[in-house]
Amino acid sequence: MYQDYNTTDTIVALATPPGVGAIGVIRLSGPEATTICNNIFTKKDLSQVKSHTAHFGRIRDEAGKVLDEVLVTVFVAPRSYTRENTVEISCHGSDFILQQVIELCIRQGARLARAGEFTLRAFLNGQMDLSQAEAVADLIASRSASEHSLAMQQMRGGFSDEIALLRQELLNFASLIELELDFSEEDVEFADRTELIKLVNKIQTIIQKLLDSFQLGNAIKQGVNTVIAGRPNAGKSTLLNALLNEERAIVSDIAGTTRDTIEEVLNIQGIPFRLIDTAGIREAQDQIEAIGVEKTMEKIKQSAILVYVFDVIRTPPEEVKSDLKKLQKTDLKILAVANKMDLNPYTKAEHYTGEFLRTEQFVPVSAINQMNVPFLKEKLYKLVVQGELNLESTVVSNSRHYEALQNANGSLQDVLRGFSDGISSDFIALDIRKALHHLGEITGQVTTEDLLGNIFGRFCIGK
Amino acid sequence: MYQDYNTTDTIVALATPPGVGAIGVIRLSGPEATTICNNIFTKKDLSQVKSHTAHFGRIRDEAGKVLDEVLVTVFVAPRSYTRENTVEISCHGSDFILQQVIELCIRQGARLARAGEFTLRAFLNGQMDLSQAEAVADLIASRSASEHSLAMQQMRGGFSDEIALLRQELLNFASLIELELDFSEEDVEFADRTELIKLVNKIQTIIQKLLDSFQLGNAIKQGVNTVIAGRPNAGKSTLLNALLNEERAIVSDIAGTTRDTIEEVLNIQGIPFRLIDTAGIREAQDQIEAIGVEKTMEKIKQSAILVYVFDVIRTPPEEVKSDLKKLQKTDLKILAVANKMDLNPYTKAEHYTGEFLRTEQFVPVSAINQMNVPFLKEKLYKLVVQGELNLESTVVSNSRHYEALQNANGSLQDVLRGFSDGISSDFIALDIRKALHHLGEITGQVTTEDLLGNIFGRFCIGK
Repeated sequence: MYQDYNTTDTIVALATPPGVGAIGVIRLSGPEATTICNNIFTKKDLSQVKSHTAHFGRIRDEAGKVLDEVLVTVFVAPRSYTRENTVEISCHGSDFILQQVIELCIRQGARLARAGEFTLRAFLNGQMDLSQAEAVADLIASRSASEHSLAMQQMRGGFSDEIALLRQELLNFASLIELELDFSEEDVEFADRTELIKLVNKIQTIIQKLLDSFQLGNAIKQGVNTVIAGRPNAGKSTLLNALLNEERAIVSDIAGTTRDTIEEVLNIQGIPFRLIDTAGIREAQDQIEAIGVEKTMEKIKQSAILVYVFDVIRTPPEEVKSDLKKLQKTDLKILAVANKMDLNPYTKAEHYTGEFLRTEQFVPVSAINQMNVPFLKEKLYKLVVQGELNLESTVVSNSRHYEALQNANGSLQDVLRGFSDGISSDFIALDIRKALHHLGEITGQVTTEDLLGNIFGRFCIGK
Repeated sequence: MYQDYNTTDTIVALATPPGVGAIGVIRLSGPEATTICNNIFTKKDLSQVKSHTAHFGRIRDEAGKVLDEVLVTVFVAPRSYTRENTVEISCHGSDFILQQVIELCIRQGARLARAGEFTLRAFLNGQMDLSQAEAVADLIASRSASEHSLAMQQMRGGFSDEIALLRQELLNFASLIELELDFSEEDVEFADRTELIKLVNKIQTIIQKLLDSFQLGNAIKQGVNTVIAGRPNAGKSTLLNALLNEERAIVSDIAGTTRDTIEEVLNIQGIPFRLIDTAGIREAQDQIEAIGVEKTMEKIKQSAILVYVFDVIRTPPEEVKSDLKKLQKTDLKILAVANKMDLNPYTKAEHYTGEFLRTEQFVPVSAINQMNVPFLKEKLYKLVVQGELNLESTVVSNSRHYEALQNANGSLQDVLRGFSDGISSDFIALDIRKALHHLGEITGQVTTEDLLGNIFGRFCIGK
């Protein structure tokens, strides 16, 4: 099945980032890992040492020239990351030296590892399932505490356990149905249909909970695109600065100061919001459409949230309402920020609310004084996270997993339809097998070379 | 003496380059290294494990949250790089995780290491002498085989051994002279003056050989600045490409194509030549000074070699001679490249040679056909390396060492002058002590905090 993924040879790669550092680590894995390293290492016979021991010595090339003084750590199969014989060579952190040592290993019979090939071997050798392997890449790429928590939870098998449980329930279910098939000529009905429907409903509830968690998981991993829009001089850039608490955008009193789209990431309690400041539209002055709807709509198309900013002194409620009518879109969450409240503290929400704005969407602030900015952050956060943020329970953050769960759910829907339509057991068994197949895709019980190539190809080389 | 260099605390730093990789290694060194790691590591008691063993487990913060699954290798003093207790924590290669773990170590009592502090401790604890410590930095920075050989030879103590030998000879000498001083009232002369002078001469010969090697050592380490200059359309850029064997410079038939100075490194048998292409001078067309002497002279000032290129069809010998007269400078090595020889194969060296060009400086080529380019490379190499390149013997490549050797040589010169002037033994003893002092600076027997700060401050953090 994994023809392209030969695991009988020995692979080598740099395991640490390239560049100058104190040390750089080269990793060898495969049946010949120890032998290859032994051929180029002097001072000790590595074939005789215990697993998990480190040894100081020299790497010499074929001509006997010393390439480096190194520390070699030996891991004897199956007690290693890949479950194969593994050797880590800790060299001085010079790209030149690391390159020389890797080339020497290749001349001695190793093959340069492809992206993710060490982790692929760990998966193929049963060290971890596919969703755990994917979490390794997520862990390495994690930039925030919440991303890190998600990946760690997944890597340690939290998600895998839930999927395994679901699969077990479905397998029991399938075996009951398939028992019927074996006796189909006798027209026996072993399984109680009502019980079966209950079981499917139960499984669907769990899957739905996982599907629902994807909105949060995806927000944590990809960030939430948030457009800040409004008429010229409403104070968009000042609000952006107030949110970021730094002088990111160039702020001036001249309308149209912001020329280009500015993108900054604002982390609110672990959720990264990608703030997209829209350019002040100069042409607006010569046009009736003061807000430059078209350009803003482009940004809105790519966004989940719109923060509409208006000046409480200069923009009358009817203009706000008309702007909101133009900007609204299905699935777009809107907050209307009444800016410059320090200049008109008597502004009331009810003047602005109506068909396109509910009271809770109205946020009075004074960006320049940072007044009520924490309240705005809280509002933004609540648009993404309902209730308490709990990263201890499983949160789906991988779109491949989301899709597989959707497909599994669809197949279960077909099972229920089959029951109500009185369809024969063999078709129902087929749909259950489909659901199992989709769940198996997540953990890698079911897989294809394309899928593996796609997943591990995104890893860095050396992992 | 090393007040600023407290070695009683425990230091921590990232030992691998920053950035995303499969793994990142954090190093702790000092009396509390094992204890600190033990406090944050779960699964095993690291205080009970043997030196040079690796252990899989989890790093947990104070709240018990798992920061990473790691591999910890323990080195028990004095069997480590620093000769202190040392722990290496191999984490997943995410900057976020590595930052979290380092901060945790600091909260547990470690201090962030300064640049080079691990190697400084190795030096202070007698693991290596100062010139070896400097070689560690050179080794990490090495980009070519010859740089690597120099650094490796120095790190393994080749240079240190020679200096130690010189010091020993001088110490013997000094003890003879100082014996005289003890009996000075009796006007005894223990040491045979002729023998002493012979000894000084012998030591000076060795020092001079080391001093002479610096030209090569410096060329290997810093590269040899080599200006390529000539009149517009002489084919400077084509020659540069031919030398580099790639399309580096934009080449066209239009004079003045090259706008900016181009710098490329050409490695000839281990010697890096920094090729500096000079801009084609457009204004030249409106000026009598067709070669743009002034701008070229600026580049020449910073260079050791000038490759003067001329077009054998368009530039008559007298113009070449006049150009060379303007460009020549003391200590500047010149090659005159007669380009486009394919168009006029009858060009002869004797037409061009004279006061400012010897026959062996004349190099006929056809850059566009790569004709004779290897010969030009050979000529360039010979300007730097006399005879065979032998990197097995000691080559001085560090300007600090060069200076110390010069100073030692100067003091020995004073000793000889003292003898010939019949100066009293105590002054001669003083000069010998001075020579010993300067040699001691190289290996670190004599040192100051400033010197150490200067040397180790150039290291990367984590080494």
